[in-house]
Amino acid sequence: MSDFVVKGFRGAAVEAGIKYSGRKDLGMICSDVPSIAAAVFTKNLVKAAPVIDGMNKMLQGPEDMRALVVNSGNANACTGSQGMLDVEHSAILAASESGCRPENVLVASTGVIGVPMPMNAVSAAIPGLVSSLDYSGLMDVAQAMLTTDTKVKTSFKRLNFKANGFNMAGMAKGAGMIAPDMGPPSATMLAFILTDAPVEQGWWQDILTNAVESSFNVITIDGDTSTNDTVYALANGMAFERSLFSEKEDFLEFKSIMNEALSEVCRDLARQIVLDGEGATKCVDITVCGAASVEAAEQIARTVASSPLVKTAFFGNDPNWGRILAAAGRAGVCFNIEKIDLFIEDVKIAGSGMGTGIEMEKAAAEIMKEREFSIRLNLNAGTKEFTILTTDLSDGYVHINADYRT
Amino acid sequence: MSDFVVKGFRGAAVEAGIKYSGRKDLGMICSDVPSIAAAVFTKNLVKAAPVIDGMNKMLQGPEDMRALVVNSGNANACTGSQGMLDVEHSAILAASESGCRPENVLVASTGVIGVPMPMNAVSAAIPGLVSSLDYSGLMDVAQAMLTTDTKVKTSFKRLNFKANGFNMAGMAKGAGMIAPDMGPPSATMLAFILTDAPVEQGWWQDILTNAVESSFNVITIDGDTSTNDTVYALANGMAFERSLFSEKEDFLEFKSIMNEALSEVCRDLARQIVLDGEGATKCVDITVCGAASVEAAEQIARTVASSPLVKTAFFGNDPNWGRILAAAGRAGVCFNIEKIDLFIEDVKIAGSGMGTGIEMEKAAAEIMKEREFSIRLNLNAGTKEFTILTTDLSDGYVHINADYRT
Repeated sequence: MSDFVVKGFRGAAVEAGIKYSGRKDLGMICSDVPSIAAAVFTKNLVKAAPVIDGMNKMLQGPEDMRALVVNSGNANACTGSQGMLDVEHSAILAASESGCRPENVLVASTGVIGVPMPMNAVSAAIPGLVSSLDYSGLMDVAQAMLTTDTKVKTSFKRLNFKANGFNMAGMAKGAGMIAPDMGPPSATMLAFILTDAPVEQGWWQDILTNAVESSFNVITIDGDTSTNDTVYALANGMAFERSLFSEKEDFLEFKSIMNEALSEVCRDLARQIVLDGEGATKCVDITVCGAASVEAAEQIARTVASSPLVKTAFFGNDPNWGRILAAAGRAGVCFNIEKIDLFIEDVKIAGSGMGTGIEMEKAAAEIMKEREFSIRLNLNAGTKEFTILTTDLSDGYVHINADYRT
Repeated sequence: MSDFVVKGFRGAAVEAGIKYSGRKDLGMICSDVPSIAAAVFTKNLVKAAPVIDGMNKMLQGPEDMRALVVNSGNANACTGSQGMLDVEHSAILAASESGCRPENVLVASTGVIGVPMPMNAVSAAIPGLVSSLDYSGLMDVAQAMLTTDTKVKTSFKRLNFKANGFNMAGMAKGAGMIAPDMGPPSATMLAFILTDAPVEQGWWQDILTNAVESSFNVITIDGDTSTNDTVYALANGMAFERSLFSEKEDFLEFKSIMNEALSEVCRDLARQIVLDGEGATKCVDITVCGAASVEAAEQIARTVASSPLVKTAFFGNDPNWGRILAAAGRAGVCFNIEKIDLFIEDVKIAGSGMGTGIEMEKAAAEIMKEREFSIRLNLNAGTKEFTILTTDLSDGYVHINADYRT
């Protein structure tokens, strides 16, 4: 726990009683000095109040962020103008208690849609939340932001630039309503990344956008893009002076280190989200390769990854390659079925559009008993490819979501 | 049973042992005289061998169809050139036993993808199948074509034109892999419609295409469009002479009767398919209205109808309007969330993009306990609308499809 520390960032979480009892559901992260924020938000047309508020704040001044308040149990989505007022109210309280301005406080929410935020509970909890902020408290925030998640999701990197050590810590929540589709700055889960490295907002935003594109945006659990998805990356520069990379070469080297680290943290968190998908018993990498274009490969990969028949077959350890080909066939992309090869790990389960026999199916079924495996659909029609990470569809998913509000 | 009769059409079914034991899995319909066929096939790029064969036959001579052979247990899809040979072989055997030509025999299959047709079983069964053909045997065919269906699906109409009685009988199968997307003549389940009325191929095809568009094409169970979907409509003209409508007015009246009857039979069968959807406990009409265009309304309706989160909420009798709005929001269509009204039957569950309170939710939850109910999402931005029929997503669906091949 005490290893999950980034210089200058304090965290805390409390039991505000927003929805759950007996667990922390309101968290806060505070930077000792202004931090530079980058953000990516959901592209869903229906955006929760904290998302709209966050977009506005990012437009107005992303270079002066001090705090981030996050709650689970209530999404503050489809709550109208009262929802917007409630976000502002939370920011004002957190700001006044922690000595900054409301516009320097980001707010994020996750939970049930369409229920007014219980502001009495939130208001009552904020003073205690601020007073318990501590450098060792970041893990508590990672815990408080969970909803149907069964595990806390964190990723941590110790990095070095010219013998100067610095850290990057990521935390995420997300188990259902996962099919991220995020644009710069306009995301599908919550993820916060903190670093004490010094950055500039322009390239910090650029590398976050790229990192999200190849991590959170290529996972899908149920195809439902949320109203609340948000990724915030805060950098407070407290590890060392920016003057260290005044030379262009140094700067490029530093940016490259940051780019790689941020991408790895995002990919790590994204995989943890899939592994903890609602009711999920499998985590499957689906690659469509040999395509004429990345777009064609993506279209097929996304269709296969969201097919209920394919996903229930995963749950049943059933190498039902016919369902995979049938899903590919309705993706709206032209290909020659007779050229298609399909692999489960290194077992070729279909070739030239036909099954390769019962022995291969048995070998594939064995592989599918593992928690993680990969599928590779080769169209043999080009050199482009696309990979998406998905889950199976289990009775557990159904129960979690049929009973969610009751 | 004996009421399910259309003049000149004989039917039979036998236990061929294709997959199931102890049930009939091979059926045949035979017309005493050449019948005029209309057809609609799946638009999935991956088409089963009998679909490709049927498309060819419809192109070559749709006015001279004599027989239709259908099996369950094996889709004959992704079976390569052997699959095509197997279709031809079945047609040759059925033709020679029944005294017509192979090109006059349509073949349809449904079942597992990617397994070679057990032609020994089929070949051995066809002579007995042909010899047991009987005018009272059509219901046996409706039974033999079922797979995971729990109920036989039929629709029957006694019609009249100028005091001449004639009949129309429809039969269908389909419970999973249901998201029909069918074009003229290029469908997602199997449905056969038989009539003893006299038709001309051109308008018979036109009214079938229209009927499918407003019936089978507006239902979805799991969003998976099948490789085998086929609708065949056969008219043998044995009820009365075509000369009855030599006058244009008579012809228009007759065509209008036929159009209405065919549409009603298709809608009736389509609703039965949804009611018998795999694991389905609900049948829900989702209408998006007040849209600027039908296309926009359709896009939103299809996205809501295939959202796993919306469908599991249906299963849980949970009037989770937030999930419905969130699904609408990711449909890729622009609308103003603040103008949206959402009704479950006549209960307004959300207005102006917000919930209307706990009393309304309670009333809606009561309605959702019914097997059938309707949802109406009004965008208040135009006059166009689109309705789609869908199911809930239950643990039963997961179990059926995780265990399908084992």
